[in-house]
Amino acid sequence: MADPADPPSSDRLSRRRLLQGAAALGGSAVVGADGSELAANPNNLPPNVPPWTRSLGDGVAARPYGQPSTFEKHVVRRDVQWLTASRESSVSFTPLHELDGIITPSGLAFERHHGGIAEIDPEDYRLIVHGLVGKPLMLTLADLKRFPRVNRIHFLECAANSGMEWRGAQLDGCQYTHGMIHCVEYTGVPVKILLAEAGLKTTAKWILAEGADAAAMGRSVPIAKALDDCVIAYRMNGEMLRPEQGYPARLVVPGWEGNMWVKWLRRIKVGDQPWQAREETAKYTDLLADGKARRFTFVMDAKSVITAPSPQAPVAHKGFLVVTGLAWSGRGKVQRVDVSLDGGRNWRAARIDGLVLDRACVRFYAGIEWHGEDLLLQSRAIDETGYVQPTKADLRRIRGVNSVYHNNGIQTWHVLPSGEVENVEVS
Amino acid sequence: MADPADPPSSDRLSRRRLLQGAAALGGSAVVGADGSELAANPNNLPPNVPPWTRSLGDGVAARPYGQPSTFEKHVVRRDVQWLTASRESSVSFTPLHELDGIITPSGLAFERHHGGIAEIDPEDYRLIVHGLVGKPLMLTLADLKRFPRVNRIHFLECAANSGMEWRGAQLDGCQYTHGMIHCVEYTGVPVKILLAEAGLKTTAKWILAEGADAAAMGRSVPIAKALDDCVIAYRMNGEMLRPEQGYPARLVVPGWEGNMWVKWLRRIKVGDQPWQAREETAKYTDLLADGKARRFTFVMDAKSVITAPSPQAPVAHKGFLVVTGLAWSGRGKVQRVDVSLDGGRNWRAARIDGLVLDRACVRFYAGIEWHGEDLLLQSRAIDETGYVQPTKADLRRIRGVNSVYHNNGIQTWHVLPSGEVENVEVS
Repeated sequence: MADPADPPSSDRLSRRRLLQGAAALGGSAVVGADGSELAANPNNLPPNVPPWTRSLGDGVAARPYGQPSTFEKHVVRRDVQWLTASRESSVSFTPLHELDGIITPSGLAFERHHGGIAEIDPEDYRLIVHGLVGKPLMLTLADLKRFPRVNRIHFLECAANSGMEWRGAQLDGCQYTHGMIHCVEYTGVPVKILLAEAGLKTTAKWILAEGADAAAMGRSVPIAKALDDCVIAYRMNGEMLRPEQGYPARLVVPGWEGNMWVKWLRRIKVGDQPWQAREETAKYTDLLADGKARRFTFVMDAKSVITAPSPQAPVAHKGFLVVTGLAWSGRGKVQRVDVSLDGGRNWRAARIDGLVLDRACVRFYAGIEWHGEDLLLQSRAIDETGYVQPTKADLRRIRGVNSVYHNNGIQTWHVLPSGEVENVEVS
Repeated sequence: MADPADPPSSDRLSRRRLLQGAAALGGSAVVGADGSELAANPNNLPPNVPPWTRSLGDGVAARPYGQPSTFEKHVVRRDVQWLTASRESSVSFTPLHELDGIITPSGLAFERHHGGIAEIDPEDYRLIVHGLVGKPLMLTLADLKRFPRVNRIHFLECAANSGMEWRGAQLDGCQYTHGMIHCVEYTGVPVKILLAEAGLKTTAKWILAEGADAAAMGRSVPIAKALDDCVIAYRMNGEMLRPEQGYPARLVVPGWEGNMWVKWLRRIKVGDQPWQAREETAKYTDLLADGKARRFTFVMDAKSVITAPSPQAPVAHKGFLVVTGLAWSGRGKVQRVDVSLDGGRNWRAARIDGLVLDRACVRFYAGIEWHGEDLLLQSRAIDETGYVQPTKADLRRIRGVNSVYHNNGIQTWHVLPSGEVENVEVS
């Protein structure tokens, strides 16, 4: 394994190394693999003039709002219909295996709804701030946009992400095992500014955030968190929130479980105790082996996943291979990501490339040589608190297998000699 | 003017201040403006239960690739049909006045084509690296994806952005005056890795980057720049490049004029002198008053624009008002942004919120009080080299008005007592 901690310039790719692998595919991946054809006929370049070079393409604003290439139609959110009784209270997953970098395009950000997508007319939208405040507020969207605002890039992970893997469902790809996460730039109003405007009372201990969807999804958030870093966001990646992400406004609760990031936010009520809402009692609590349940397990602990190779992104060549994935922590910045090729016996530090931000995804890479041997690929995240992502076995030992929430255990992909990849468990 | 350099928590919004402005609109913007109605009937909240709360919405994956709300249909790229003879060689502009933060959503990133959008089948895509190299390469897209890769957030600005303003066209909004810019996360292969793979010869001085579009758009790039930080990107904001942004691969030339960021990249030829391509001789040179032309004016100097208020985003209320905009520099990081309310006589530092990255956009805010007086809003960027964005008068004094390129002069918006905003010049 090449030292992946080195900068890319020293990944020490030799040309021979790269083309070896391509040649193993029968030469179709690289035309003129040894370069001699091109060198002999430099004036014949390019050898084939494709149709798109021979005629004018569509002009500007052919699509005033642009779309992906028609050749990328397979890159979509997908749901699993056996997973839930209805699609109105269900999940569609981010296609992590088809993405790179850290920003999730808004059109591919996973969905989790409890009563379907509320289609809100922004003219009729209202946000109420009431309870333990000096003066309740009812704000229009235009009002909300008048407040000072901030920009934050954060991951949002559903507490149930990887939940089916607790009992070893071994779903067929990281889109399904880890695809309840996205990471975008949010723009909105800090909750503390709104609460100051309403005249927060000193007796305040919690807020209730409630949605305007048919489920009226509500969660209690401790006032300290709300005042610290929560934001009422109305934009993602520059533009207004997408309908399925809470248009026109949602709560951003950095580092904490996605269920608390209430979408279609219609009110914030300030109180002195939690509301014991359905989604923090019957759901989103962690049933332990002894029948007791952990609750208010807000923080999403450090976690990572290799997005390629993975079951939906098999290896198509031998030779130099880039292993890549995402890591994140709800407790701060990711400090390091390790990669193992042998199911966790040996670890090497991966190269993190791009931004390393507080409670945002980081992108990691490890360059390896692969010549058809079996691999048991794993990654583990270490965050700035020193916390190390645990194995699934470690988690089960402590928490049993009753819960579907907060599974941040290490994922294993088995790369077969054929290049196919399977979701496996290692003991 | 409130001190905008303070963090938002101390923007010192009083509730009275915000609601004063809303009340001036006749009370429609804020229901129960003094809060008494809500306080008296706490159980009546929300006063009206809207239809989206009374019935289930669409389920997950109703749109496998998500789209903006139907209420945001006005937020689109727009072109100006009188500007060019055809739409195949033309421009559509980013709606900067409708965005916030620094990331441009891919669907709204401006377009500049020279022969229309090449619709490339990724299976038939080839990238050739030849010229002064030991062994020429012809790579498929799959080959390109095998190389080590990097992630970079950069602005891309067309050299002709604000070009019509040289002679004072005073176009009606920042979408048209400054909308030939976008800022996204790119993922791709450093050019230096590809050139190392091909065996770069020591005689190399320049590369030619050429597109596979019908214009075969080509530009010469000094080898030092190519080796320093240029990237062959195949992704933007995580997903594959959009067709109009060069799918499946484009050159990223950080901080340099957008014309050099060749889209639909089909070859890189290495040579020992520039190619004197059409787009670096007849076009993208800067004709001075004396008839001589500056050429190879690659770097985009520090610049900024207030995106709201602006002609397309008039002021709808009195009282506290957030002035916001974007700033950038092709020479590094933006260090400071100043805002003036009086046409440049007095300046105050704006608050920059969010990421401050090398050769990327930054977002700035200034909270002011507005009570119907005339304003002459300006912003100016100062970058880490100490360079201060100049006035248009300064630029014209040195460069005349023959060129449409590299106009980074300070923009002035006149806010009228009605709240409408006009593009004006101040002497």
